[in-house]
Amino acid sequence: MSERVWTAALLIIGDEILSGRTQDRNLAVLARWLNTQGIRLREARAVADDMEAIGAAVNALRAAYDYVFTTGGIGPTHDDITVDAVAAALGLGVSHHPRAVEILTGYYGAELTDARLRMARTPDGAELIENARTGAPGIRLGNLFILAGVPSIVQSMLDALEGKLEGGQPMLSRAVGAWTAESRVADLLRRVEKSHDGLAIGSYPFWRDGRTGANFVLRSVDEAVLCRASDELKAALCAMGLEPVDGEI
Amino acid sequence: MSERVWTAALLIIGDEILSGRTQDRNLAVLARWLNTQGIRLREARAVADDMEAIGAAVNALRAAYDYVFTTGGIGPTHDDITVDAVAAALGLGVSHHPRAVEILTGYYGAELTDARLRMARTPDGAELIENARTGAPGIRLGNLFILAGVPSIVQSMLDALEGKLEGGQPMLSRAVGAWTAESRVADLLRRVEKSHDGLAIGSYPFWRDGRTGANFVLRSVDEAVLCRASDELKAALCAMGLEPVDGEI
Repeated sequence: MSERVWTAALLIIGDEILSGRTQDRNLAVLARWLNTQGIRLREARAVADDMEAIGAAVNALRAAYDYVFTTGGIGPTHDDITVDAVAAALGLGVSHHPRAVEILTGYYGAELTDARLRMARTPDGAELIENARTGAPGIRLGNLFILAGVPSIVQSMLDALEGKLEGGQPMLSRAVGAWTAESRVADLLRRVEKSHDGLAIGSYPFWRDGRTGANFVLRSVDEAVLCRASDELKAALCAMGLEPVDGEI
Repeated sequence: MSERVWTAALLIIGDEILSGRTQDRNLAVLARWLNTQGIRLREARAVADDMEAIGAAVNALRAAYDYVFTTGGIGPTHDDITVDAVAAALGLGVSHHPRAVEILTGYYGAELTDARLRMARTPDGAELIENARTGAPGIRLGNLFILAGVPSIVQSMLDALEGKLEGGQPMLSRAVGAWTAESRVADLLRRVEKSHDGLAIGSYPFWRDGRTGANFVLRSVDEAVLCRASDELKAALCAMGLEPVDGEI
């Protein structure tokens, strides 16, 4: 039985990412969140605060994946151009969303300036994504989700989307670690992967206190496959006399 | 005088990135390193351990930027397919690079197994990038650089490339922070940016101990522009009665 696999892409928007000033933390969080929704993150891109770069990436990703998420560029300042870039890429107009204006009025009261009102601008036809953290909402346009850049606000928006996206089976994973150079067990890993349908094994080396170790991450949508394969791998590592790693490093 | 701007892209390769298991740390390091070489990182992509996805991304990025870097997928295990994927994308054969075999022989001695020899495979015509950390070299094919995924090894390979790439002027930056909502100073930021040629200002809010602050990062290749613009911004923030942020948050 081969179930439909739902796919997603993330577009990270912001000069601060590509200058190295800011370390993105949203990719990993979104990846894990999507997996619990039964959706696979298949690609991520990072582009600068540039209308054309954003637009080209949004259109390329929309054509290739079921869902597209963007992070960054929806604040009140001049460098926040995501809404305009996405609208231009989709051939949509931009206007103040009545419900977003209402939310921001509730949040800022008399201090709702023009700059703050910028955060109520959406491409035409948009729905809002609630942001319990700082008021200013995210934006949903069908299967395109425009989120903030600040990680705590992204988390708040993902909370609001929880369970609302159609997905399939989550990818399950199990890590098996051993104190060994991964190159010593390369043949074993390949053999275990090949002998179980739908199993993928990733090998990730690490060095700690002068010793070499590796984590082998087994991935499958089928818990039984995962269980059998990880038992098989553990037994084989044990038979080679390799010390297991306690917990995942 | 408008000098040539040299551009680069990064392709991050690995299931562990897109599953959220591993937080990429190479993008920010590479971005800053490239900038000191006078090269701008303009785009980054992350794809899975998938021949076609890697190949398509490499070819798209090579066509658009002066330099392309890849990270990940050059180890000894079955999931390390970057060399094969890049070679296929470029229409090149793959063989054992004599100098790489020599390096690995020196490193592993009698323990140079077939799995470890995999790390000497390169697309035909490749040069090697020295890796003082763990021996196994990176690969250079003209303006394409194939690096490891482990951050300490990436750093070692960047050390080996230091000063060897043609570039232009580094982008200079200066951060000015204030305890204020960025929305309060949005007009000011826009005005300062517009009044200086070649200046870009990014605004990055933060929340600390119940207070709202923001960092304004000014970027220009011209130190004099940066100096004038940041003095102007600081004076204007001061005139608004806003408390400066000590150090960058």
